[in-house]
Amino acid sequence: MRNYMQIFLGTSFSSLSPKEIQILKDHLFCINSDGMIEMIVAPEHPDYQPLLDAYQGQDNFHVLAEGQYFLPGFIDLHVHAPQWAQSGTALDIPLYDWLNTYTFPLESKFSDLAFAKKVYDDVVGTLLANGTTTALYFATVHKEASLLLAKICAEKGQRGLVGKVVMDDPQGNPENYRDSDTHTALVDTEEFILAVQELAKSTKQGVYPVVTPRFIPSCTNEALQGLGELAAKYDTYVQSHCSESDWAHGYVQERFQKNDAFALHDFGLLSDKSVMAHCNFLDEDDVNLFAETGTAIAHCPISNAYFANSVIPIADFHAKGVEIGLGSDISGGFSPSLFDNIRQAVMSSRMLEDGVNPSLSAQNRGVPGSRITIHESFYLATAGGGESLSLPIGRLLEGYAWDVQIIDTKVPSAKLPVFDENEDLQDIFQKIMYLARPENIREVWVQGEKVHSR
Amino acid sequence: MRNYMQIFLGTSFSSLSPKEIQILKDHLFCINSDGMIEMIVAPEHPDYQPLLDAYQGQDNFHVLAEGQYFLPGFIDLHVHAPQWAQSGTALDIPLYDWLNTYTFPLESKFSDLAFAKKVYDDVVGTLLANGTTTALYFATVHKEASLLLAKICAEKGQRGLVGKVVMDDPQGNPENYRDSDTHTALVDTEEFILAVQELAKSTKQGVYPVVTPRFIPSCTNEALQGLGELAAKYDTYVQSHCSESDWAHGYVQERFQKNDAFALHDFGLLSDKSVMAHCNFLDEDDVNLFAETGTAIAHCPISNAYFANSVIPIADFHAKGVEIGLGSDISGGFSPSLFDNIRQAVMSSRMLEDGVNPSLSAQNRGVPGSRITIHESFYLATAGGGESLSLPIGRLLEGYAWDVQIIDTKVPSAKLPVFDENEDLQDIFQKIMYLARPENIREVWVQGEKVHSR
Ligand SMILES: [Zn+2]
Ligand SMILES: [Zn+2]
Repeated sequence: MRNYMQIFLGTSFSSLSPKEIQILKDHLFCINSDGMIEMIVAPEHPDYQPLLDAYQGQDNFHVLAEGQYFLPGFIDLHVHAPQWAQSGTALDIPLYDWLNTYTFPLESKFSDLAFAKKVYDDVVGTLLANGTTTALYFATVHKEASLLLAKICAEKGQRGLVGKVVMDDPQGNPENYRDSDTHTALVDTEEFILAVQELAKSTKQGVYPVVTPRFIPSCTNEALQGLGELAAKYDTYVQSHCSESDWAHGYVQERFQKNDAFALHDFGLLSDKSVMAHCNFLDEDDVNLFAETGTAIAHCPISNAYFANSVIPIADFHAKGVEIGLGSDISGGFSPSLFDNIRQAVMSSRMLEDGVNPSLSAQNRGVPGSRITIHESFYLATAGGGESLSLPIGRLLEGYAWDVQIIDTKVPSAKLPVFDENEDLQDIFQKIMYLARPENIREVWVQGEKVHSR
Repeated sequence: MRNYMQIFLGTSFSSLSPKEIQILKDHLFCINSDGMIEMIVAPEHPDYQPLLDAYQGQDNFHVLAEGQYFLPGFIDLHVHAPQWAQSGTALDIPLYDWLNTYTFPLESKFSDLAFAKKVYDDVVGTLLANGTTTALYFATVHKEASLLLAKICAEKGQRGLVGKVVMDDPQGNPENYRDSDTHTALVDTEEFILAVQELAKSTKQGVYPVVTPRFIPSCTNEALQGLGELAAKYDTYVQSHCSESDWAHGYVQERFQKNDAFALHDFGLLSDKSVMAHCNFLDEDDVNLFAETGTAIAHCPISNAYFANSVIPIADFHAKGVEIGLGSDISGGFSPSLFDNIRQAVMSSRMLEDGVNPSLSAQNRGVPGSRITIHESFYLATAGGGESLSLPIGRLLEGYAWDVQIIDTKVPSAKLPVFDENEDLQDIFQKIMYLARPENIREVWVQGEKVHSR
């Protein structure tokens, strides 16, 4: 018998496919010293009892209580870490004011490392407490503070993918919050990449540098070109915003006479390691380009209700082979919880399918075939996020990282409405999806290490 | 100096108007023995210091800690109490299956009073823990179990308005779950009204019987007529569903050659004490009829995303003088929290304003002027609910009931992202609206009595 670091006994929910959940009832999950799931053993398997006999009672043997379940940790593909400090505010004011009177002044304060530490400690801890084991972060233009965010992820045990934001165009950005010039933006990005790659060497769960042009309107052509080259040179992740709103989509068309997707592609910014936020206004060619290049979409349904002027046709894009995950988009989206975003993704897709305007006839109101189920939305937050990042995360399968949240449906202060001792596990799963709150998340593990408990 | 039952010292948020919040900083709230706010005293008022001198240190003097705030308790205008047992499940299946394989079989189980007690205890306790101090409930067809729900509200201290559901038409309802006949439905309703009115005599915060035809498709004309007469005879509240979906709206037009609103009115079911759920498809005449009769709308934004085929134009209907409050619509809506519904009401209104289909041009996508702000949505959940029920609740003003939730923004496990000691209270309010969870609700009071704490 192999020597395992940890063994867990319990029932898990994980995506088998976008539309199907795999339920493993009372299985053993055997975790190796790299924090990977080396073996999953069913109760009827001949190794089951010998493993129980060998490990039961030891400190590294963990048994779920009745009413507790394993879920894969969530993968948040789009978080503006500094904006956590303003989360929930100012969503009623126009985007221009939101950026200029709230967001940019706030982000500029991250030149102060003490302030940055306070906010970044809090946002990483909060995301972990919400079950997010991997996060793809926008930091700010500041190299040092961005590196601090990566260090905080490393320390707290979260799998952090972090970008120093580039916004170098004097025309497109406020004077007091932008890169000092294009050259500095690229040098800072390269130094940032090297520093994070160094940090990664001592980080079990991984931290990754991300090339991060804020979005085309805030960058010069030279910066975009240089960032594409840096991404190729260091084989890094890339993130940006793409075709989010009527304004952003139209701006790029005017500047380049092509859609955002193709403009980004021309600068070498679309690849299998690229994740683009929102993408509401992709046309068919854009979608095919995403599928061909392996570029993923970070769907941010809460944020989109405020800033995207539309609902992205997720079901259609997913069917066309584009990788899609979920993002909170703090603070365009107010919630640090991917549970909240899972729920909103379903609701928004229903609203796209049925349409919204009751004064139109049912035939002319919506876009048939647009709905996604709660299973698909869960898939986006877990397996879809893992595919988007090309990492072995987001599923509870052999060969995947032990990134899990332990959900307790019976915690007295936040008991889920389960009144039947033998309730169908498919229904339990749906109740967890729709009703779980941070209180129900009792433990969070990343790469085989416990990173949160309550 | 008057003798008060309780005095509270702290900062409150309450609606001044639909678009404005009134912030009373460090005020004294003096509660009389009826549980009403008899006096609110500002720090600069001459009575302030004498009141402090007289009450400070006594058991009935309560001071909020730093980071704690008073909000009015929420008023949930539409809850199917029995459906709490299936909340979060089966939202991906068609309405017909949802009703026939989940909802009706579940509701039929409430003939069993032991089962009813288990679920009703839990739903009333859960709503209180979510800050809901007043709730307008659909129970089931069962007279005894419906009365049990009213008793549980009375005992737990929630202001409950409870309806025994009438669904008497053999054509419109399953054989194993409906009133046995029209006469029995009416007799049971009358006995239920009398029993709840008796119970109300010993209930400080009030419990109220509600005449409750499920919706027109489930009732015979005789039942609807008889229920209108009972409502008039006993001056009771009335609740039902009105023009929720394309199907329901069309059904009533076909049966009566008029809209749902006018059909209900013909049966005497619209009045100042009527609350109709959903109402997505009201036309202009319907809206005027609602305004004239004082009939209120229970807007259920989460449920509507699944079952209403549209977004109700709340801003427009509110501007035309219709009273509107919020409803969770458990379990068409999955969440027991009006915080969740406040957030969704804003998001859905934004989606109506901007439209949802990105393949349409911006000009042809949405309905301009449809958005509501977070302030307006908060108004619906509090003051608007109070107006809908014509009760002095939903505002923290003299002459209103002391129905409050005490929100702690600094509770360690659910700290809100406030990093500035002097953050503007308007921003604090918005952070509470968007980010508060049940953990942040430390105490709930109804009519001057503490009914929940954690
Ligand atoms: Zn963003
Ligand atoms: Zn309903």
